[in-house]
Amino acid sequence: MVRIYGDCLSGNCYKLKLVTELLGTPHAWKFVTWTDGGTRTDDFVSRVNPAGKVPVLETPKGEMIPESGAALYYLARDSHLWPTRESDRAQVLRWMFFEQYSHEPNLAVSHSLKTAANPATETDTKLAELKPAGEGALQTMEQHLSTNDWFVAGAPTIADISLYPYTYKAPVAGFDLSDYPHVVAWLGRVERLLGFISMEDAIAQTTPAK
Amino acid sequence: MVRIYGDCLSGNCYKLKLVTELLGTPHAWKFVTWTDGGTRTDDFVSRVNPAGKVPVLETPKGEMIPESGAALYYLARDSHLWPTRESDRAQVLRWMFFEQYSHEPNLAVSHSLKTAANPATETDTKLAELKPAGEGALQTMEQHLSTNDWFVAGAPTIADISLYPYTYKAPVAGFDLSDYPHVVAWLGRVERLLGFISMEDAIAQTTPAK
Repeated sequence: MVRIYGDCLSGNCYKLKLVTELLGTPHAWKFVTWTDGGTRTDDFVSRVNPAGKVPVLETPKGEMIPESGAALYYLARDSHLWPTRESDRAQVLRWMFFEQYSHEPNLAVSHSLKTAANPATETDTKLAELKPAGEGALQTMEQHLSTNDWFVAGAPTIADISLYPYTYKAPVAGFDLSDYPHVVAWLGRVERLLGFISMEDAIAQTTPAK
Repeated sequence: MVRIYGDCLSGNCYKLKLVTELLGTPHAWKFVTWTDGGTRTDDFVSRVNPAGKVPVLETPKGEMIPESGAALYYLARDSHLWPTRESDRAQVLRWMFFEQYSHEPNLAVSHSLKTAANPATETDTKLAELKPAGEGALQTMEQHLSTNDWFVAGAPTIADISLYPYTYKAPVAGFDLSDYPHVVAWLGRVERLLGFISMEDAIAQTTPAK
């Protein structure tokens, strides 16, 4: 059985929970979060991830796989969420790299700035800096989804799973999704997939009671 | 035959040239660069990549694959640079996502700021902001390479190809590699691979004479 280290308050961790629910993958969830120092303990850094980050997937043989995109690949590699044609597989990776390079650094960081308990004085300046690139990422998605129901090969893949969390959270991050109607329709398609779990339910299921 | 759109002045494009040389992959190189507006022409945006970025790999069937990591996967998928064990494949992707998320945005952007023809007034501030995360990425590599000759499975893979260009250029970007001896030794191992082409030679081979 695989084990997942992380907290679903992070969209990058929630992606892994979402794919395990869509695939019915047996797994153990080990709650580890940055906010209470859990990702920086001696045990975590020496045994799980020297970089002190979540999520990390532990394989049944005890091998540790950091980086959400790598973990999504490992979880989905034998499923319908990883296509069979090689050029489709490359397109799935294309959208997953797009997400980590052009989407997440703008939308997730904006979300984190917007929801910070103690906003810093430079928050508004940083949000303004991230805005154009975030809008650009949403525009790239909107254009692709205007002629495609899903990102690759006309069916859901881990590309869609990867792009879902921080697009769903975009309004909280200060982005108005009414400018992106095809993106909104695609969010709905993801949410109607059999086995879909919302971020809120994922948080409730994986966060220990205080 | 595959076609590659890009210019080897960009480390992300050079990665593709490097892997085709290591594998002996027949390919046509179509020189397209950002600096003269080539990535923003109507033809490029409508036919090759709506996002207006290079590199892009065109498959023999005419399908376009943006994002260097996705193109590297497509080029290397049947070669010794893409391992056979699934957990090793996940580790290759882990380092490729690390490169695009934690390494390239700090080292490549610093390189670009350091080599800009007309430095902006805020350049020094931006370089100082990028410095800790760039050092952190090099430290993560140094730690891994202190007990490993290559990033995954004891042999060269597209993870090494992905991390090579902007690590090789780190000194120009303002990072002192003498603090990272295992990284320096690994750069040498990459450079001794059969078929290796330097960034300088790749630029000379792919840039049309004026």
